[in-house]
Amino acid sequence: MKKLGAEILCIGTELLLGEILNSNSQYIAQQLAILGIPHFYQTVVGDNPDRIHQALTIAASRSNLIITTGGLGPTPDDLTTEAIANFFDTPLEERPEIWQRIQQMYAQTGRTLTPNNRKQALLPKGADILTNPVGTAPGMIWEPQPDLLILTFPGVPSELYEMWDQVASPFLQAKYGQGTFHSRVLLYWGIAESALAAKVNHLFDLQNPTVAPYANYGQARLRITARANTQEEVIALIAPVEAEIREITGEFCYGTDDDSLSSVVGQILKERGETLAVAESCTGGGLGEVLTEVAGSSRYFLGGIISYSNEVKMAMLNVDRQTLEQHGAVSAIVAEQMAIGVKEQLKSDWGISITGIAGPDGGTTTKPVGLVYVAIADPEGKVAAIELKFSPSRGRNWIRKATVSSALDLFRKRFVMIG
Amino acid sequence: MKKLGAEILCIGTELLLGEILNSNSQYIAQQLAILGIPHFYQTVVGDNPDRIHQALTIAASRSNLIITTGGLGPTPDDLTTEAIANFFDTPLEERPEIWQRIQQMYAQTGRTLTPNNRKQALLPKGADILTNPVGTAPGMIWEPQPDLLILTFPGVPSELYEMWDQVASPFLQAKYGQGTFHSRVLLYWGIAESALAAKVNHLFDLQNPTVAPYANYGQARLRITARANTQEEVIALIAPVEAEIREITGEFCYGTDDDSLSSVVGQILKERGETLAVAESCTGGGLGEVLTEVAGSSRYFLGGIISYSNEVKMAMLNVDRQTLEQHGAVSAIVAEQMAIGVKEQLKSDWGISITGIAGPDGGTTTKPVGLVYVAIADPEGKVAAIELKFSPSRGRNWIRKATVSSALDLFRKRFVMIG
Repeated sequence: MKKLGAEILCIGTELLLGEILNSNSQYIAQQLAILGIPHFYQTVVGDNPDRIHQALTIAASRSNLIITTGGLGPTPDDLTTEAIANFFDTPLEERPEIWQRIQQMYAQTGRTLTPNNRKQALLPKGADILTNPVGTAPGMIWEPQPDLLILTFPGVPSELYEMWDQVASPFLQAKYGQGTFHSRVLLYWGIAESALAAKVNHLFDLQNPTVAPYANYGQARLRITARANTQEEVIALIAPVEAEIREITGEFCYGTDDDSLSSVVGQILKERGETLAVAESCTGGGLGEVLTEVAGSSRYFLGGIISYSNEVKMAMLNVDRQTLEQHGAVSAIVAEQMAIGVKEQLKSDWGISITGIAGPDGGTTTKPVGLVYVAIADPEGKVAAIELKFSPSRGRNWIRKATVSSALDLFRKRFVMIG
Repeated sequence: MKKLGAEILCIGTELLLGEILNSNSQYIAQQLAILGIPHFYQTVVGDNPDRIHQALTIAASRSNLIITTGGLGPTPDDLTTEAIANFFDTPLEERPEIWQRIQQMYAQTGRTLTPNNRKQALLPKGADILTNPVGTAPGMIWEPQPDLLILTFPGVPSELYEMWDQVASPFLQAKYGQGTFHSRVLLYWGIAESALAAKVNHLFDLQNPTVAPYANYGQARLRITARANTQEEVIALIAPVEAEIREITGEFCYGTDDDSLSSVVGQILKERGETLAVAESCTGGGLGEVLTEVAGSSRYFLGGIISYSNEVKMAMLNVDRQTLEQHGAVSAIVAEQMAIGVKEQLKSDWGISITGIAGPDGGTTTKPVGLVYVAIADPEGKVAAIELKFSPSRGRNWIRKATVSSALDLFRKRFVMIG
């Protein structure tokens, strides 16, 4: 017998032409992970009977749960149901209840039925209907042979989601549910994926829980995944491994799961009952933008000054003209004056400032592209600037985004060290 | 001999767990379509040597161009290069030029190299380096056997895009290109993909050039693609179709190809020799951030004030207390005062302001989530606010991003109408 393993088969030429993003695969993958059903392959083929047949041959040989999306519509291009019936040498038969519902739905919305629509009422003999609460085309739930289950869904995401939630998820839970499956993701900033992996290398051979590193837009992460009979057991399996990783990786870890650097900073400020304002040069508002991604950020974020020009730095942030002339706008002392300036102007407890050279132009040998200063002014009015250096080859937008994350991380770390 | 056909093989357990969206497949699919290279299959497997081997077996049997993404990183999980070398029974060898570049990149940014990093300098004997201009890990270009070409890319989208543009695309063009192939993309704001498609429906049956609609993060686009023997012929084929589309779609079209709303706004300001400042409430700096994505934006963008709190609106933008109390912060008149205020404070020619309710909380029956005012103050000091309404179900971040795009689009349209 094959080991339990699911395979997602997406059918649609539009995916091969890059006209749409395959968000259905991600959705189903997430749902399978939640149900604890192992999932090893995803395949995309076009609306072509031979290639659908070939994909079914491969999938049926290695997986025992095949989930298809797409190809259930009424047009001649929609081949999924027919291809599956052919593959298992099973005749199609019309299901009166489906045909009745299609007629009703068209009547309700005043659309005209075409002969094509009747095709959507066909399912292989022996297959159950996977009800579609929102669209005309249902899918099938079918075990054409022992050890193989097939579920078909339309390609329209909103229909897929409803069908999954209302029908497929409870069905799969009842059929395969063995205990519980849970992941915890530890989030990092300021450490490369490779350096992080090197620190916890010895944990990658664990079987339950498993530990795996990955990077997402430059942010390294570690995922701990456990499986057990009860939620309590799962948590008990994850806890000691998480504690060990935290011990090893220390302050590099800024949060877990759905946290972000800005939500962590927001949490610190809320707990302390303090407020923050920002002064931004090269990031142009990006720090404020990220801070206000968090709903409810108005409780601690007052606003900021985007001082892209030197005149604005002087007029709105009280940066000293002579300092600017002597040290240049990209300097520790200007960053410090900006942080103090915005804190005073906006009457906040904290001020964070950013000034740097994001490129591609504007760099010099002494001040290359990628050089950034971040300063933090604290409630007592003390201020300190930190120098950051990014590789110019990363490009303007990467440097700006990494600067914003680094500024948030520097703020966060002040409290890790105190706490 | 196999017929020319490409296959995309994405390697990464995070895809099977649904942790990231497979945007790389869409990107490569689009690029293959632009080059006119037929593409019949996409496969996703995890970081597992046996399953990568199996996927290579299948792909090598049916495709003659295999493009992989992912698994080029420095961690033990990153198996792609090794798996490919093993599959073709070819030893790995260290490439000194890659190792040197990795060391340089780490030195520049002051990061510490780990023994793991050296793995990224290995490629199968006989493979060429697919240079990575932005990250440490290059890919390979390799013909391990006649009739089979393999290109490998990292999973990080920004690196993949640069490598494709700078190396892979010209290489594939030279190898498979028959004549010249060229695409022109028309960019839209303020019109849904379906409405745009309905306007130019009659063009979708054209064969050369072809016209195809697609949407990218809510922005509708039309792609015109032509093929001919010379560049001149290609341009001559595209021009009349572009002219017809522009005639039909009018001011909805804001630019072409690599334009963005902020680059178009920047171009207008540069041509007029005028400057801009922004006052932002619910977008928290997002408008400034997008304006400064454009290199050289300091020529026309002076900065702005993020007035997240009412106190900042009054103190820094001279918004009237009584107006705030009477009309609320989310009102046309407050938006107008903000636009005038920032223009005066920062001494810019133009002021753009944004105030709105991004949600999820803070909405009322009269002022629901999704209600936004954008005001534009012109060089003569005249100001006008526009009311925008977004569906609350779109969510906080969508509303904020759409608001920023709408504000830029409103500014742009003033000049379309004059011009």
